[in-house]
Amino acid sequence: MKNLDSQIIRPTLLLDKAKCITNIETMLAKAQRSNTRLRPHFKTHQSAQIGEWFKERGVDAIAVSSMKMAEYFANNGWKDITVAIPINVREIGLINVLASKTQLNLVVESREAILFLQSELEHAVGIFLKVDTGNKRSGIPAEATGSIRLLVDLMKESDKLNCKGFLAHTGHNYQAKDQAEIHKNHSKTLLALNELKDIFRKEIPEIEVSLGDTPACSISEEFYGIDEIRPGNFVFYDIMQYVLGSCDEDQIAVAMACPIIARNIDRNELVIHGGGVHFSKEYLEADDEGTKLYGSIVRITENGWSGILGGGYLASLSQEHGIIRCSVELFDEFVVGDLIGILPVHSCMTANLMGRLMTTEGEWIETMNSKQ
Amino acid sequence: MKNLDSQIIRPTLLLDKAKCITNIETMLAKAQRSNTRLRPHFKTHQSAQIGEWFKERGVDAIAVSSMKMAEYFANNGWKDITVAIPINVREIGLINVLASKTQLNLVVESREAILFLQSELEHAVGIFLKVDTGNKRSGIPAEATGSIRLLVDLMKESDKLNCKGFLAHTGHNYQAKDQAEIHKNHSKTLLALNELKDIFRKEIPEIEVSLGDTPACSISEEFYGIDEIRPGNFVFYDIMQYVLGSCDEDQIAVAMACPIIARNIDRNELVIHGGGVHFSKEYLEADDEGTKLYGSIVRITENGWSGILGGGYLASLSQEHGIIRCSVELFDEFVVGDLIGILPVHSCMTANLMGRLMTTEGEWIETMNSKQ
Repeated sequence: MKNLDSQIIRPTLLLDKAKCITNIETMLAKAQRSNTRLRPHFKTHQSAQIGEWFKERGVDAIAVSSMKMAEYFANNGWKDITVAIPINVREIGLINVLASKTQLNLVVESREAILFLQSELEHAVGIFLKVDTGNKRSGIPAEATGSIRLLVDLMKESDKLNCKGFLAHTGHNYQAKDQAEIHKNHSKTLLALNELKDIFRKEIPEIEVSLGDTPACSISEEFYGIDEIRPGNFVFYDIMQYVLGSCDEDQIAVAMACPIIARNIDRNELVIHGGGVHFSKEYLEADDEGTKLYGSIVRITENGWSGILGGGYLASLSQEHGIIRCSVELFDEFVVGDLIGILPVHSCMTANLMGRLMTTEGEWIETMNSKQ
Repeated sequence: MKNLDSQIIRPTLLLDKAKCITNIETMLAKAQRSNTRLRPHFKTHQSAQIGEWFKERGVDAIAVSSMKMAEYFANNGWKDITVAIPINVREIGLINVLASKTQLNLVVESREAILFLQSELEHAVGIFLKVDTGNKRSGIPAEATGSIRLLVDLMKESDKLNCKGFLAHTGHNYQAKDQAEIHKNHSKTLLALNELKDIFRKEIPEIEVSLGDTPACSISEEFYGIDEIRPGNFVFYDIMQYVLGSCDEDQIAVAMACPIIARNIDRNELVIHGGGVHFSKEYLEADDEGTKLYGSIVRITENGWSGILGGGYLASLSQEHGIIRCSVELFDEFVVGDLIGILPVHSCMTANLMGRLMTTEGEWIETMNSKQ
């Protein structure tokens, strides 16, 4: 095996395959313990190769966040795909193609979308009604059972719309102040989905309820009545999850390796090639003054990376440059041309931008966003 | 010509070619008036096709923000390319390839980078010393003439390092509170570059100074002593530039067309397919309470888009969803399946993510980020 340092020319997203596999196996074990199906959300990695690591461990159902992503994974052998975003009716052409060859599950939340599908679907699909349990992004409020019943009844008028149950996303867990708040949000979602299951058990004989978000699926052990969980980010984790308490530092399976292109000794700043087009501009507030943190610093080692280094953080990003603010000690460790590692704030966005990843063994992993 | 609406299936970055050409011609006319060279920064569009629109108008020198971008444009016939970011010494292989076939200009700011190039360059390149006139991202402080002289002298020891002069970026204009502050920052950069030119005229016989940022190049008419300007964003402009006063609303040449996938009548919110993977997560603060604005709203018309609609804005983004907060009137205008237009906050980041653009005539424009 060659030294990693010698293989990296420009900003490179490193993947520690062993950590990634452990993350997959840990979540699978939790799903099995909880008697629920793991339907991993593949929006984080968007990679057929990484998908295989799930398949080898018995996973056969996935969630994705766009119809194009459904197409990519269908073309890579996946047969049970939930597109976990309210349908875009303009994509009916692709919906019909995919519905002809996979178990395609769609998410709807409006009468208009159901009427459209009744008119335009050429093949049967599964339908999950999106319910909102406090996230306030999309979905019918879970307590609006009258409105929900109207939609359930409406679906009975078509043999192509097979209502499967309810789907929720406790996305507000990302704004949680502490783990207690994540537990509270999660409990509310659990309760709401179980209530809906009770109410609609007769109308929907094989009713299922599905929830998903990495914070709750990582932190909680309580999934009573839940038929499937759809976490995505756990495959890589990142600094946002670490700060939320969803993972330990050594579960973070990706790190950006960036070349140092300049040093400013007056400000103890290292300038890296690595900017918004690599990391995205997602940040965390590092203190009460609103100091922005775009990533934490690690040392790139022969075959991976170190623990998080105190005394430095990725403090700003422009299109291609990043600035690492350092202690004197950290600053003095690095010269122009060295690599430095950065654990990203939001690995989904970083992986989406980077397109492909290099394992710590030096092999390239392709994704649906790999460039020509 | 077909109606635009009928051609758009999923989030699509629309380009108004006529506005874009006018932006190019306006900046070219200003450069000519000011007796300075326009070396447009192509990081905004990253497109060989759009590059041709400059070439047809006499532009033959460009700036880029990465060596890969230099390679792409060199492969598309460009012969005079400045890579306007401190060099990444790990890319010496590609540097030598490009230096063998183009006038390649590199940016350095450290003794280490110069010594490295002296040892490793196989062909002559132009060198600009990066100076900092207040941006505090990278560069030697423009007033540190002793340090600058050491580097200029060091370059004389190699016949492959052809010192061409000084390059500055008044990037702090993006944090300016008003146009007066942009003028002030710009004047400081002008003064600093002219002073350096005076001091080093003997050591660097054909000395040139280069500055670039869209706000100052758009707002100012004063470029005394400046040999070239390197604005980039002006080719498209965006809401950030509009708020800074760099452009009028009708100069913004790109708009995202996004399908509406859900409506929440309780909150007057429209949910679009269009998220951080399309727009990036760049935002502006819309008020003193820190309300985040991720884009302004327009109506998609038969062959373009309307002026900015009051009463609504893109208020949040997750990976694939966006939420538009609306007045009742605006909310009532749209149904699920409609398109809505969004002027992006930062067109460079949006164009980089989208990979290709559709002109308002319905033709696709490819970029170096077009996906397979």
